[in-house]
This record gives sequence, structure tokens and C-alpha cells, in this order.
Amino acid sequence: MSEKLHIIGVVGLGLMGSSIIVALLKSGCQVIAVTPLPEELEEGTQRILEQLQLADDMHLLKENQPTYTKNLTVSSDYKALINCQLVIECIIELEEIKKSVYQQIEAVVPISCVIASNTSAIPINILQQYLQHPSRFMGIHWAEPAYATRFLEITCGEKTDVSLAEMVQEEAIHWEKEPTLLYKDIRGFITNRLLYAAYRQGFELINQGVVGMAGLDKCFQYDIGSWITIMGIFKRMDYVGLNHYFQTYQTIFPKLCNSHEVPRQMEEILQTKGRGIHNLKGLYPHSEQSAKQLEHNFAIFNEEIYRLADRYRNRLKELNLAEPNGKQ
Amino acid sequence: MSEKLHIIGVVGLGLMGSSIIVALLKSGCQVIAVTPLPEELEEGTQRILEQLQLADDMHLLKENQPTYTKNLTVSSDYKALINCQLVIECIIELEEIKKSVYQQIEAVVPISCVIASNTSAIPINILQQYLQHPSRFMGIHWAEPAYATRFLEITCGEKTDVSLAEMVQEEAIHWEKEPTLLYKDIRGFITNRLLYAAYRQGFELINQGVVGMAGLDKCFQYDIGSWITIMGIFKRMDYVGLNHYFQTYQTIFPKLCNSHEVPRQMEEILQTKGRGIHNLKGLYPHSEQSAKQLEHNFAIFNEEIYRLADRYRNRLKELNLAEPNGKQ
Repeated sequence: MSEKLHIIGVVGLGLMGSSIIVALLKSGCQVIAVTPLPEELEEGTQRILEQLQLADDMHLLKENQPTYTKNLTVSSDYKALINCQLVIECIIELEEIKKSVYQQIEAVVPISCVIASNTSAIPINILQQYLQHPSRFMGIHWAEPAYATRFLEITCGEKTDVSLAEMVQEEAIHWEKEPTLLYKDIRGFITNRLLYAAYRQGFELINQGVVGMAGLDKCFQYDIGSWITIMGIFKRMDYVGLNHYFQTYQTIFPKLCNSHEVPRQMEEILQTKGRGIHNLKGLYPHSEQSAKQLEHNFAIFNEEIYRLADRYRNRLKELNLAEPNGKQ
Repeated sequence: MSEKLHIIGVVGLGLMGSSIIVALLKSGCQVIAVTPLPEELEEGTQRILEQLQLADDMHLLKENQPTYTKNLTVSSDYKALINCQLVIECIIELEEIKKSVYQQIEAVVPISCVIASNTSAIPINILQQYLQHPSRFMGIHWAEPAYATRFLEITCGEKTDVSLAEMVQEEAIHWEKEPTLLYKDIRGFITNRLLYAAYRQGFELINQGVVGMAGLDKCFQYDIGSWITIMGIFKRMDYVGLNHYFQTYQTIFPKLCNSHEVPRQMEEILQTKGRGIHNLKGLYPHSEQSAKQLEHNFAIFNEEIYRLADRYRNRLKELNLAEPNGKQ
């Protein structure tokens, strides 16, 4: 159980907020859930209970539901946050509204309380300027559903006290997360930044006629998919043998795509208002049935890979605790 | 069962060759295994039987072992390849030796026989020039162990008859593969090319002090790892919703790393002769125990993810058969 962050406030009871609340309850925290909109109190409470039921259906709860709900307070009054050690804001991605929420949080919580945003749209450096005490502010970015994913990015803004962010990272292990600390606020987070480098290269190969899109996806599914979950990309180099990589770096780096252009496929999609499986207009052909199939199967897969990854997480604990030589 | 490629020759009975032989036997092919070195006949045969036993231990064989071994011929005489529809060369990565092997294969096989190399070191365009009939030559690149992985890259050289490569891709589905066709021979194959784009970006973020190496690996393990196996990176965009990506492309592409420089960490490793877990000098700290743990656990994981992926492969068959709009 997290010791330094035991009483945690969550502001915003939407899908993401309620999912985070369940993740925190599940790891033994006391949660103060606040909605700025009194009319959403009932609906928000209902949403939390539904998410808790889903976690239970996935057999992720060690105790019965009341053991967790007794640690939950739902309120539309910011004053309920008075004893919080951490407050996570999960409201709509509008700067002005977030600003007013931070003011109301800071008016109530003790000076030692960490304040965080789950934003994926607004830079932490920008949000930070709205705080009276910006050094206690950081990004804590969760993956959906928060109670059944290990991913967590903790992002420092320019004014964030890094030691506070490191403390949150340490405590987040007790939330059953595998948290990554970003010492600087970069656009698009870590995963996106690296994925976009791969997308850029992938579109180039497709547009040069080297490979088809489905062919490329299969490489990722069945090659990278066969090892990524237990080692990541850098530990992979140690596993394969570093000596194999040096020459390839020299050969391949100068051949990588450096374009700034948005690929033509993305331009075309913008014009046709394609939203992928959500309106059946995407990079791939979709039918209502195939879209539903994918959604349904992904939900099950997510649960299965979560469990599978967990077995190796425990077995390789010694290895995973090892930090690479030098933090950077 | 593959109809057009039913009698398949494999030249070279090393670890990779014998693993490919078992993959082919397992899918019902008749295999003519040839070693150019008569003194390796016994050892090579032993190696194939060991690999077959390993596949059996993994419960990957539907029939008992003799059902497969009766389809296997092992010989040190190239003449045994006389009826082959495909011959795969899996010998040492030395151009001169490969050249002589192709000459001996071509002297025996019918004109309709496809000839392929499992090379990962020498461009197909270069090897192709050593063939009398270069249009029937291509790369067929397997992942280890060949009988327990789905990944397969089929690479055309400049002179390869693309319709032959497409035929091999189609037949490879009967070898229980998810084959990717590369219409052009690029250095480093598809997966490596995209991975190196991610490595380049990853090293930049690490060297800029944004994130540590272990933190970055965790993002890949627990974020990308949670979906890559069932959708790849492009289908992922359709799943998340394409509309979210356009603006990010515009924002992130100009910020991606375009350096040609080999990262300083790789230079340092070259100097210290680090080979990762193989000599316990790597990007991460390793002990003999942690290296063994990783190897052992990866072997089990490989089996588990192979099975897991297979369940979704069948469930999403309709979707996976769908080709993206336009091949390129």
C-alpha cells in the first residue's frame, strides 16, 4: 500500500476519472471523488460503481466490493479534498476550466499536497502557470482502463519539483503500475513520440512501394509482438547481442526518413472525414461487424495480456528493478 | 496443406535450417534436407530430430513424430533436390560459399523451382546475380524458432518475378505463417527499419534528459505491448480514431529526430566490447543469474504469446484477411 500518497482526490467523474478512482481504490487508497457539477453527483457515483463491477468481473479485486467502497467519498464540494496528499484532475480538456479547478483545489488542500493533471492535450508547462505553487504540479497520464493497465507516465513541467515527481513514481508502484518518469514535458509523450518516428518511416516504405500496410502491421504484430511485453526495445538489444547493432546503426541511420510532411494518406483521410472504425472509414476497410469484432476482441485481449505480462513481471522482478547504467 | 510448394529443399542443417525444416514438416510438407558437408550428415539429422522433439514438447504437433519424419529425407547429395518446388538456402553468411551453393542447386532442380535465401546479412540484389535464372530467386526470412513463430518476410530482389513471390506468400499461409511481402529489397528488413527509427528517437530523448532507458522500455512493454499483438500500428490508428492523428502528425513530425549520428552509448559499447547478456556488458546491468532468467523466461513467453496471438488470429480472421485500401 502507498504510504506517502494514501488519501487521494480525483476531480472529474467521467469515464477516465472513474476508472482512475477504481484503480486507486483497488490498491487500497482512500479516494475523495469530487465533481465540480452537483448535478453529476449521482451519475458519477453510478459510473464509479460500474467500473468497480467491471474490475470485479475481470477478477482483479482481492476483496469484496464493500471493502473498497467504504474508502470512497463522493462529493461536489471541493472542501472534501482538505486532507488529500495528492489530487488528480481529470476534467474536460479546456484550459480556462482547468485553471479555475486548480484554483479551487489549491484553496482547500494543504501546502504539501501534490496536484496533477491527467491531460493528454495541454502541455504541463502551460497548466503549471495557473498554480499558486507550481512546483507541486505535474502530469500523471493513465491508460484506459486505469485498473487493468500498467502504463503510467509522470511528466514534470519546467517548474515541477523533480523530487516530488520521483516520490509519485515510487508510490505509483503501489498502485500496481510500471510508471515512467518524464523529466521534461515533451509534446506527445514518450510512446507517441517513438511511435510517430515509426509511423513516419512506415508511411515512407509504403509510399515507396516496398511493402503494403497490412504486411507492415503483420511484422509488428508477430515479430515485435513476440518479445516487446517482456523486454522493451533497449533491453532487446542486450538480449540479441549489442555487437550486432553497431554496424546496423551506421548503415541504417542515414537511410531513415527525415520528412516533415504529413503522409498523403493522412491528408486524404482528413478530406473524407475518416474516423477509422468509428465511422467505418479508415486506412483499412471496415464493416460494422468487423469493427465490433475488433472492439470486443481487444477488450478480452487487454485482459489476457495484462495477466500474461504480470506473470513475467513477477518472475523478472530482479531484472526489472535494475536501472540501466546511468539514468540518462 | 501447401499445394504449389509441397516438396521443399533446405540446404544447411544448422540451428536455423533444422528449425525451418521442422516448421515445414509440421505443416505437412515433404522436406529434402541437404548438407553440403558430408561429415555433418549425422549431426544435422540429430539436430532436426531434437528440434522436432522441442516442437512436440511445446504441443505444437498434431500427429506423432514418425508421421513427420517419414516425410523427411536427409542427404549430402544435391541430386536429392531434383523434384523440389522450392529450395531454401540456410548456410553460413559468406557470399562466395552461397554463390557455389546456388550453382549446385540450379544444376539439379527443375526450371520452375523457386530458390530462396534465409540471409539476414547479404542483400538479395547481390545474391541474385549469382543465379542463372535470377527471376526465381528471393529472400525468405524466418524468425527463431521457425516452428513457433508467425513472422516471415519474403523479399524481392530487383530481378525477382513478383508473381512468384506472391505465390510463395500465399503458400506460406499453409506453413502457418503470417507472411509479409517486400516488393523491394531494403537493408535491414521492415521491422528493423521501423525499430531503428524508434531507436533513433529513443536515444535522442534519453540523451536530452527527458526520460531514462528503463522508463522508456516500460512504455513499450506496457503501452504498446498491450495492443500490438492484435492490431499492429496502422490498424491501431483506425481503432483509436484517425481524426486524433492528423494534428499530431503536423505537430510531432517536425520535432522528430533526424540525426545520422550513432548514439554515444553505442560508441561506448563498441569500445568496451559489450555484447549485452552474452558477456554481461550491456545497456543494462546484468548478472549471470539475471541473464539466465531472461533467456529462460523469454523462451516460455514466446510459447505463451504464440498461443495467445493465435486465438485472436482465428477470431479476427475476417478482419485480418481484409487488405487496406490500395496495396501501397
